[in-house]
Amino acid sequence: MQLKSDVVIVRYGEIALKSQRTRNRYEHILISNIKKMLDLNNVDYSEVTRDQGRIFIHTTDEVAVDVTSKVLGVVSVSPAVTTTSRLDDITKLAAKVGEQIIRHGESFAIRARRAGVHEFTSIDIARQCGGAVIEKVGDKHAHVNLSSPDKQIFVEVRQRHSYVHTEVVQGMGGLPVGTQGKMVALISGGIDSPVAAWLMMKRGCEIVFVYCNNEPFSDESNRERAMECIEALQAWSPRKLKVYEAANGKNLEAFLDTCKESLLCVLCRRMMYRIAGEIMKKEGAYGIITGSSLGQVASQTSENLMTEIYTFNYPIYHPLIGLDKKEIIAIAQRIGTYEPSIIPAKECSVVPDHPATAAKISDVLEAEENLNIKQMLQHTLECTKKL
Amino acid sequence: MQLKSDVVIVRYGEIALKSQRTRNRYEHILISNIKKMLDLNNVDYSEVTRDQGRIFIHTTDEVAVDVTSKVLGVVSVSPAVTTTSRLDDITKLAAKVGEQIIRHGESFAIRARRAGVHEFTSIDIARQCGGAVIEKVGDKHAHVNLSSPDKQIFVEVRQRHSYVHTEVVQGMGGLPVGTQGKMVALISGGIDSPVAAWLMMKRGCEIVFVYCNNEPFSDESNRERAMECIEALQAWSPRKLKVYEAANGKNLEAFLDTCKESLLCVLCRRMMYRIAGEIMKKEGAYGIITGSSLGQVASQTSENLMTEIYTFNYPIYHPLIGLDKKEIIAIAQRIGTYEPSIIPAKECSVVPDHPATAAKISDVLEAEENLNIKQMLQHTLECTKKL
Repeated sequence: MQLKSDVVIVRYGEIALKSQRTRNRYEHILISNIKKMLDLNNVDYSEVTRDQGRIFIHTTDEVAVDVTSKVLGVVSVSPAVTTTSRLDDITKLAAKVGEQIIRHGESFAIRARRAGVHEFTSIDIARQCGGAVIEKVGDKHAHVNLSSPDKQIFVEVRQRHSYVHTEVVQGMGGLPVGTQGKMVALISGGIDSPVAAWLMMKRGCEIVFVYCNNEPFSDESNRERAMECIEALQAWSPRKLKVYEAANGKNLEAFLDTCKESLLCVLCRRMMYRIAGEIMKKEGAYGIITGSSLGQVASQTSENLMTEIYTFNYPIYHPLIGLDKKEIIAIAQRIGTYEPSIIPAKECSVVPDHPATAAKISDVLEAEENLNIKQMLQHTLECTKKL
Repeated sequence: MQLKSDVVIVRYGEIALKSQRTRNRYEHILISNIKKMLDLNNVDYSEVTRDQGRIFIHTTDEVAVDVTSKVLGVVSVSPAVTTTSRLDDITKLAAKVGEQIIRHGESFAIRARRAGVHEFTSIDIARQCGGAVIEKVGDKHAHVNLSSPDKQIFVEVRQRHSYVHTEVVQGMGGLPVGTQGKMVALISGGIDSPVAAWLMMKRGCEIVFVYCNNEPFSDESNRERAMECIEALQAWSPRKLKVYEAANGKNLEAFLDTCKESLLCVLCRRMMYRIAGEIMKKEGAYGIITGSSLGQVASQTSENLMTEIYTFNYPIYHPLIGLDKKEIIAIAQRIGTYEPSIIPAKECSVVPDHPATAAKISDVLEAEENLNIKQMLQHTLECTKKL
């Protein structure tokens, strides 16, 4: 008989460290996110329950494991077979599982955990299950090896039910999306900005994307790349991701006409922060996320970063500020944004050959005073579309 | 004859991607940092040279490898033996190295790289050295295995010299300290703040530490812990780390006397940002670094983080904002700050049982208006000591 899992056990780490009240709230959000992700992926399940620090998805659909491992806040998942919490039933099931997975000459270990009140200990479980497995597969020269077994059989006993499984699929950890405040993420479609947004999703933020379209200085290829990156991030979100598109080209034209070329990148970023700041207020969000890293490109100097945020009274988060390009690429590859972010696209044609590496606040403020920034912003927001 | 390395080859990754001018500047800073770290650790060396994307430390001191692998910006180091760039000499040396490291029945591979103009290719090097090694150790049943050899012999041929080595010790990557702007890091002595400061050191920042002493609400144990964390970070810095100590206790007393208890943590953080902001200006630094993470403790909400930075016109960086506690602890363990940061210390006794999780900007500004913040700051700065 081939055993088929009827439940997916979900483990979540950091939440368990919270106070009872916070934990309760986070668990509810996590369960709601799991259900939404299962629904979005058309996974068939009967119910999702919660029991002493574990969530159980009652399903025989094999896709459930993969989908659930992508729910942020989840540390790991295991497809398991359910039985009662009677030691006899547990033993029978463990033996069957052993018979199914242990091949000739292989070693195994029983890993038992127990929560609740029972007439036996976890050591009793391990001993009895181990014996039963040996009895079933002893003729295959199977033997116990606790330190580095070929196969592991996990037994989780709860008050009324027990679960036997053999697989632990890692999730991404973090906190469930929606447990922390909403944030606005600027997305360019390069490698960095999608990773920055994802890291904040992983810390529980709901993300609203803002794409600043620099046409005619960029083109449709740029826009498509950004949209594909957002599409890739959608796989991690229990809700349809919100995206705003702002036309920033006219602003760039105005800067080109009146300002020193070397200041263009800093002025452009300040404009994008203003646009994102207004969308942040409108959305009731609590900060802006950028893909800025330090020293990665010529214009990402600490002087420029300081000038870029001057006078803005809201938090601008740079989750990549302390990471190397190599580390950022590794995350991008893991989360699926790397491929879309390297689709060839036209580079912004306004970028000067020698951008300022130490743009002075006074120079930038002076440049802005020669323009009606307020009106430019107003106009941009009027033309901003929610996609 | 036992071969002894006479040079340490240093590789640095990200710098190689820069423009020639920037690269030149970064390489000079890296060499200067390497020399300082060698001197600080009393390592004996004759000179440090640079040749086509590699740095060479001429030394027979075995400690040099470990010290250099801790210089930020360094990707990896290898102790090597020098010879000429004549294929005969290279072959003889490779054979000797092979004889020294290959044991009975082991497989090996020659990994050859060449930069400069020579009458032979890297394939020639690999073929000839491989043959010579076989000849030397053939009676030990040694054999070539290019895909997963037991031992590797690396041959790096430059215009005039060649280097043979067998070991690649990983460094931390990043950028050399001093290539990016100076930053002020708030350090509490907990697990997080030293990691945040280190990540920015790794991105090339020179760090000035500010410890806010909350006595009588904390005690000497707290201060000692912070100082030991800074001491651990010193191992990564080519220069003596600067530390300021500010007495923040009186400020806390004033907040306790006049403000809502729930706002204390936010008010305290704002005061610390003000203190760090003034030291930042004095030091010619470009931002403040904190160990804040999102949702890690009750008061680290996006609402609070927003209120904490309101009206401050300088960048406040939270390099850990997108990381899980587990990831932060892993870095702390790797860089040596974990042990000192878990030394038992008195928790700040002002922290209320129920700190605000959504401190309103208006409430905080109102609380501050009832106090002479400017004078409090002035007084604190007057009592701030440079350690």
